[in-house]
Amino acid sequence: MGGRLEPVVARARALVRDAIAADDRPLLVALSGGADSLALAAVTAFVARKSSRTARAVVIDHGLQPGSDRIAAHAAEQAERLGLASRVVAVDVAAADEGIESAARRVRYAALEADAAVDDALVLLAHTLDDQAETVLLGLGRGSGPRSIAGMPARDGRWVRPFLRLRRAETESICRAHELTWWDDPHNLDPRFRRVRIRQELLPLMDDVLGGGVAAALARTADLVRADTEMLDVLAERAHTDDAEALRAMPAALRLRVLRRLALGGGAAAGELSAEHLARVDELVTDWRGQQRVELPGHVSVVRSGNRLRCIRTPVAG
Amino acid sequence: MGGRLEPVVARARALVRDAIAADDRPLLVALSGGADSLALAAVTAFVARKSSRTARAVVIDHGLQPGSDRIAAHAAEQAERLGLASRVVAVDVAAADEGIESAARRVRYAALEADAAVDDALVLLAHTLDDQAETVLLGLGRGSGPRSIAGMPARDGRWVRPFLRLRRAETESICRAHELTWWDDPHNLDPRFRRVRIRQELLPLMDDVLGGGVAAALARTADLVRADTEMLDVLAERAHTDDAEALRAMPAALRLRVLRRLALGGGAAAGELSAEHLARVDELVTDWRGQQRVELPGHVSVVRSGNRLRCIRTPVAG
Repeated sequence: MGGRLEPVVARARALVRDAIAADDRPLLVALSGGADSLALAAVTAFVARKSSRTARAVVIDHGLQPGSDRIAAHAAEQAERLGLASRVVAVDVAAADEGIESAARRVRYAALEADAAVDDALVLLAHTLDDQAETVLLGLGRGSGPRSIAGMPARDGRWVRPFLRLRRAETESICRAHELTWWDDPHNLDPRFRRVRIRQELLPLMDDVLGGGVAAALARTADLVRADTEMLDVLAERAHTDDAEALRAMPAALRLRVLRRLALGGGAAAGELSAEHLARVDELVTDWRGQQRVELPGHVSVVRSGNRLRCIRTPVAG
Repeated sequence: MGGRLEPVVARARALVRDAIAADDRPLLVALSGGADSLALAAVTAFVARKSSRTARAVVIDHGLQPGSDRIAAHAAEQAERLGLASRVVAVDVAAADEGIESAARRVRYAALEADAAVDDALVLLAHTLDDQAETVLLGLGRGSGPRSIAGMPARDGRWVRPFLRLRRAETESICRAHELTWWDDPHNLDPRFRRVRIRQELLPLMDDVLGGGVAAALARTADLVRADTEMLDVLAERAHTDDAEALRAMPAALRLRVLRRLALGGGAAAGELSAEHLARVDELVTDWRGQQRVELPGHVSVVRSGNRLRCIRTPVAG
């Protein structure tokens, strides 16, 4: 990168610097070869060198497309040239009930976790503001309330997302500034994937109808909703009880969270527990007329006996 | 209405009954002549008769379309036949800086408030789940966080919205069951209105891409986000302070709300105060480097002197 420093590069460096400042663990960049993660590798390499921190990159080769090994190797080579020790980890994605996207994600995170655990590294993920907006809309499709539209956190344990305020197009500018060649995943253009249709059809129409800036509005809303949810989750932890009268005295925001904790503690399946399920459990508290038990996903039911709520295992049929 | 009771009519009656149960003030139905408010008039007339409560209807004639007086009179006649004392109030909508929609809304609410104030009536508004979903998306366009996607409350002082869980199409079924003829406002088909494009283009595409049920998911999310916001607003009221060190110790969800209260208390314009504005005020607390004042809409600035945050009037130029 010669000559004048691109403003977007300077901004990206500040983002990475801020994201890792409070934590001196080694850095591990999760690299796919796409513009976003290649930009993150370039910026992280610079910031790590300036602050004398250890940084490396790992490329997960999902083996889902012909030539994925070559693409992975090319990404690793570029990261090496940027000054990051880099390696490729080949994984085996076997999609069972879940879709291919979600299986790939699960296997990828497990491989990154295994690699990071070796030296307790921070894992830098290249999700951008655009990814965040798409995640919020996907969450809206699931429709289980604030939690489902809270998007991805900038920091969650060892997982760090410094680029959540950067646009995807800006990561391409960063790659160009570093003369890096990124790989455009054809899956990113395949309308069979819901995320692709969100990006190509839905967000442009939302911008047109709602007057622009929708991706940024979604990302900002997610940030604020997440902050609200985090605080209320802490309060719910402190207020935890199975006493229906105590629950009835709580504001709904707190009560529904305590009920969620009760259900999860009793074995309900977190991924499938919806706002409707909790609304029905809530009726055991706020509209008690001697109801039968409320069945939840994960073969768990909630019953009320006297003033207590209890979770019981629901016998699996057959 | 002869013969068998339509299930949707029974559900609507239960909704109105529950909405007014805890409050014995007289009932005032805000009637436009559209299917939603005509259905509400029919259901309210029944519930009021059964529970011996006083109920009436008022039709606001905005005078914005030719024949609006005739439409208003026809709506009032039908409400009379349903058993509601009904009258038409003609108002004058003069849109200044604001758009015609927002001017009409302001004038309409003022006229309803004036009418309701006479006998301290509850005002029943016919907003449906579809209206709620559209309101959430409009709020998203403004993008100022949870508050902007919290939609309309089911209850706010004298204003009551019993139909927020009913679909617009269901209100048409209710009208048919009562042999009422509603008026389809041509404005509801005019794509120059943002709300119309949300209804006709955006929500159908969202349903297609996200797998259906989006309006209901938006309405449910709004309910839960509003519950969260209400609780956090109460906590912020209790935690109110202008002490920057005390603010710095608060979770972001609380801190940003206290800062919002400070700004509004200092005269900032509520409607224009965005999440970005508050993020900049927040930097006076969390990233204090001796910044200049932060200017807010409404000719107010926030300054930090020592550990105190203060609002000062910003001189208006000219």
